[in-house]
Amino acid sequence: MAPTRNARLFFGEFPTDYPEPGKTTVYDESRTIDLETVALEGGVLVKTLVVGIDPYLVGRMQDLGIPGFAFSKGELISYYGVGLILRSENPAVQPGEHLYGFIPFQEYNVLPAIDNYKVLKNEEKLPWSVYVGICGMPGQTGWVGWKEHAAPKEGDVVFVSSGAGPVGSMVIQLAKQAGCKVITCASSDEKVRELTGTVGADVAFNYKTTSVFDVLEKEGPINIYWDNVGADALDAALQNAANGARFIECGMIAQLSGPAYTMKNLFMIVKKELKLFGFTINTLLPKYSEEFYREVPKKVASGEIRYLEDAKQGLKQAGDAIRDVWQGKNRGKSVVIVGEE
Amino acid sequence: MAPTRNARLFFGEFPTDYPEPGKTTVYDESRTIDLETVALEGGVLVKTLVVGIDPYLVGRMQDLGIPGFAFSKGELISYYGVGLILRSENPAVQPGEHLYGFIPFQEYNVLPAIDNYKVLKNEEKLPWSVYVGICGMPGQTGWVGWKEHAAPKEGDVVFVSSGAGPVGSMVIQLAKQAGCKVITCASSDEKVRELTGTVGADVAFNYKTTSVFDVLEKEGPINIYWDNVGADALDAALQNAANGARFIECGMIAQLSGPAYTMKNLFMIVKKELKLFGFTINTLLPKYSEEFYREVPKKVASGEIRYLEDAKQGLKQAGDAIRDVWQGKNRGKSVVIVGEE
Repeated sequence: MAPTRNARLFFGEFPTDYPEPGKTTVYDESRTIDLETVALEGGVLVKTLVVGIDPYLVGRMQDLGIPGFAFSKGELISYYGVGLILRSENPAVQPGEHLYGFIPFQEYNVLPAIDNYKVLKNEEKLPWSVYVGICGMPGQTGWVGWKEHAAPKEGDVVFVSSGAGPVGSMVIQLAKQAGCKVITCASSDEKVRELTGTVGADVAFNYKTTSVFDVLEKEGPINIYWDNVGADALDAALQNAANGARFIECGMIAQLSGPAYTMKNLFMIVKKELKLFGFTINTLLPKYSEEFYREVPKKVASGEIRYLEDAKQGLKQAGDAIRDVWQGKNRGKSVVIVGEE
Repeated sequence: MAPTRNARLFFGEFPTDYPEPGKTTVYDESRTIDLETVALEGGVLVKTLVVGIDPYLVGRMQDLGIPGFAFSKGELISYYGVGLILRSENPAVQPGEHLYGFIPFQEYNVLPAIDNYKVLKNEEKLPWSVYVGICGMPGQTGWVGWKEHAAPKEGDVVFVSSGAGPVGSMVIQLAKQAGCKVITCASSDEKVRELTGTVGADVAFNYKTTSVFDVLEKEGPINIYWDNVGADALDAALQNAANGARFIECGMIAQLSGPAYTMKNLFMIVKKELKLFGFTINTLLPKYSEEFYREVPKKVASGEIRYLEDAKQGLKQAGDAIRDVWQGKNRGKSVVIVGEE
């Protein structure tokens, strides 16, 4: 068989401002792979179908001073994706099966070990892209954090910062199902419309044009805060929290990307007897994984759980997708469709 | 009966620096009271035996912008104290009994209602002063916060900021009884010696001469942080927390009194999956009060629970006591012995 193009996206250099395609991320079509003869050495050959893009990924393109966190120059970008097994020397999996896990941003990969990948059944025949969004790590993050820490009561007022991503969208829908009033925000009027429309939030606003504090003062006090942002959003939530409110600390993207912010309202933790719960998906997932895969794809297929997706076609577009996510231009979960079955 | 002197301490003016006796607090001996004839109108006449002094009290001598929080000019200073009932028109209590609750800083007070006071039995014949310290609100604060939120495991490393006060001293001893290693700090070498000596901490240091961060880096990571301080102590604890550590947020005195501090390590809440629990004594006390009064005075009498006390004699000294507390000069719980039985 003739060699097949094996395009890839690798890390170039730290950006000065935003992750610039061609500099921060470099798309390269020069390599080829022989799909029939490439040595597997006990591993599997996987065709990349889709990869997801998250702000986390851009964090790894910055020098945050966290040892081992940033990508190295020339290193393949890698993140959650779904791949189709073309060949396998691993008896646990067969050609035609689909793997979910960290996939190098390359059209074809030989994965030496698959312990950290999950075989997806996809009995609902959902588009594979949902498995990096609402049915993947981001959806799981919303699911497990909410199930573990929210303890919602009917009528609770919930504020979800960053509602348009799959984490926020999942949380909004779980909160609505629990009978809560949900306030959320996003970075554009278009996303705001989707949040009250498709996703079903009660109140949504554009945080670039409307003060978080003012909205919470009017619509609160809040009983549950789902924090993806930190900094001024957290500060506004602290000031507008009900006594005994629960804060689920999922991320503090503003802390990673923005200028240093001096919190004014931390004392509210004491005064209002707040509880803050930090969590990461990897610790909680084992407890909820079986339930998640049993329930969520089915609910997505039936439309009970909805999601927003912003898909780009072809690995060539992945650099643009990364830039857009960093600039908040994506409308819903950003995915890159790398290949077809 | 001849009129009896009824000395009092009232609020003068906001301090520019520290609460200055004669200006911030004014001691006045000009008034008298006729103990036999003063009208009770259904209330009780109480002789003040002891009042406690806490940093909280000094907070109320500042303009913190919290409506109704600051003392007004000419208002009697008032805080937790113990009084002896001299006369009663309330059938629920008798002369000779002792009341614990908010007592105006005055040698004799007519209390119109006693719903918010507790009759102290003191079967252990402890000095009444302990009932505003280790057996009073501060000791209760340590007790209820620890019982409700600490969930200690043997071998846990616990950091207690501000260990020399009765809150911290209670927490240190509960942590030691639970088999934890306890790190604590105070504002003088003398208090530090008491903390490892009398109170029984494993590691104690003077935070004015030793970096909290350095000590926690060496002796941690910490599993439980009892926070009385906030700001840089909280920041150091966040950075040196073990994964899944529990932070009991009892107070943030640095936030109330110090310059604005920009937290550097809030993201550790997410990354290390920390839990923060704010609480106030009034909400939790009903759940633990019976247990507290059943167990603690007995343990104090037997020496199983120890405490540090810094007593001044006479209401005339109360202004000095308040100033000393604000300047951190008190060695242990500050109390003012106002009268004898």
